[in-house]
Amino acid sequence: MKRIAESTVRRLSIYLRFLEESENRGLATISSQELARRGGTTSAQVRKDLSFFGSFGKRGLGYSVPELSASLRDILGLRRTWNVIIVGAGKIGTALAQYRGFRQRGFIVSAVYDRDPRKIGTVWESLTVRDVAGIEKDIDAAAPDIAVLAVPGEEAQGIANRLVKAGVKAILSFAPTQIHTPADVTVRSVNMAMELEGLSFALTSRDRNGAEDGLDSASR
Amino acid sequence: MKRIAESTVRRLSIYLRFLEESENRGLATISSQELARRGGTTSAQVRKDLSFFGSFGKRGLGYSVPELSASLRDILGLRRTWNVIIVGAGKIGTALAQYRGFRQRGFIVSAVYDRDPRKIGTVWESLTVRDVAGIEKDIDAAAPDIAVLAVPGEEAQGIANRLVKAGVKAILSFAPTQIHTPADVTVRSVNMAMELEGLSFALTSRDRNGAEDGLDSASR
Repeated sequence: MKRIAESTVRRLSIYLRFLEESENRGLATISSQELARRGGTTSAQVRKDLSFFGSFGKRGLGYSVPELSASLRDILGLRRTWNVIIVGAGKIGTALAQYRGFRQRGFIVSAVYDRDPRKIGTVWESLTVRDVAGIEKDIDAAAPDIAVLAVPGEEAQGIANRLVKAGVKAILSFAPTQIHTPADVTVRSVNMAMELEGLSFALTSRDRNGAEDGLDSASR
Repeated sequence: MKRIAESTVRRLSIYLRFLEESENRGLATISSQELARRGGTTSAQVRKDLSFFGSFGKRGLGYSVPELSASLRDILGLRRTWNVIIVGAGKIGTALAQYRGFRQRGFIVSAVYDRDPRKIGTVWESLTVRDVAGIEKDIDAAAPDIAVLAVPGEEAQGIANRLVKAGVKAILSFAPTQIHTPADVTVRSVNMAMELEGLSFALTSRDRNGAEDGLDSASR
């Protein structure tokens, strides 16, 4: 399989959400135009995105809603559950630990870690915050699939190094700094300030060039 | 100016962070290769990203660190402050209200809103949670630049409609559903479950194809 761009995977997630909504509304088929509109893209891009993974749909008939959503769940790895740990029991970490959208998609948060003695032992929903000092032993025993990094920027790389050394292959980082990992570890970063910079850029471009320019509102 | 892709703007933010680090370390110049490595891209892409905005750097000499970082701050609209409001005083909303990284970049959170009477009137740092019922009047008076949407999925579109009608032109949404706005309103979405799906996709691809494939760890 070709290396797939992150933007493609992001669109697959958006298509899947729209297909599931359509399924709930009882629709049997959907056109690439409708998927495109929802994903903020073109129908050519929809066909290209899906072509990486096989042959879907019939010319003139569109896509079967249940078939394509099953395929996308398969492609995105959503037919199974994933064991997720969260490092950092601050506001973001605990918000994520309690986020219902994760469990609905099969992402099961199994542990939350912190280094602050005042937080260790406290209970969030059904999870007791554990001491990050023991994380290597826990990873060895429970083999979590994904680690969410919600620690301050200056601690992020150090914790990432420990996670990688202990065998974690996928990290979602909320740290405001970029973390570096070996090529076989996948990292996704959510940087809140960078998201706002995308908006300040768009507002500034608008002021410079008139309201027609700037970022496409449907670009994501 | 050409319409700029969101991925380009995201890389500009990453380059700026690296330039500022370099500035703090006292470096005078930097090559496109170094910027590329930091942005997880190629030096050709760095040159293309910057070429949208003018002519920077000298062949063989690289870029002047202070000049390029000043230009990027200018391009990204970071030479001024931005008035930000947050709708939804749940865990994510209050985490964002207290996030220091915003203020450092000039994003000043001026108000937090909720509709829950138990939350209205409570104080987060120096902000008192206000009743969302009065948000139109407040927007009219204070003209916030950016609204952060941290409400449940089923409320997101309704709140977005109210914000847009009141004149907000930029929205950062944490709702798990996609929101629709007129073309002159810029929306960025952070969907936590979708971020994890990027990782489950990468882990699944790896299992299917061996560890060489899957997402490029430096793709963002």
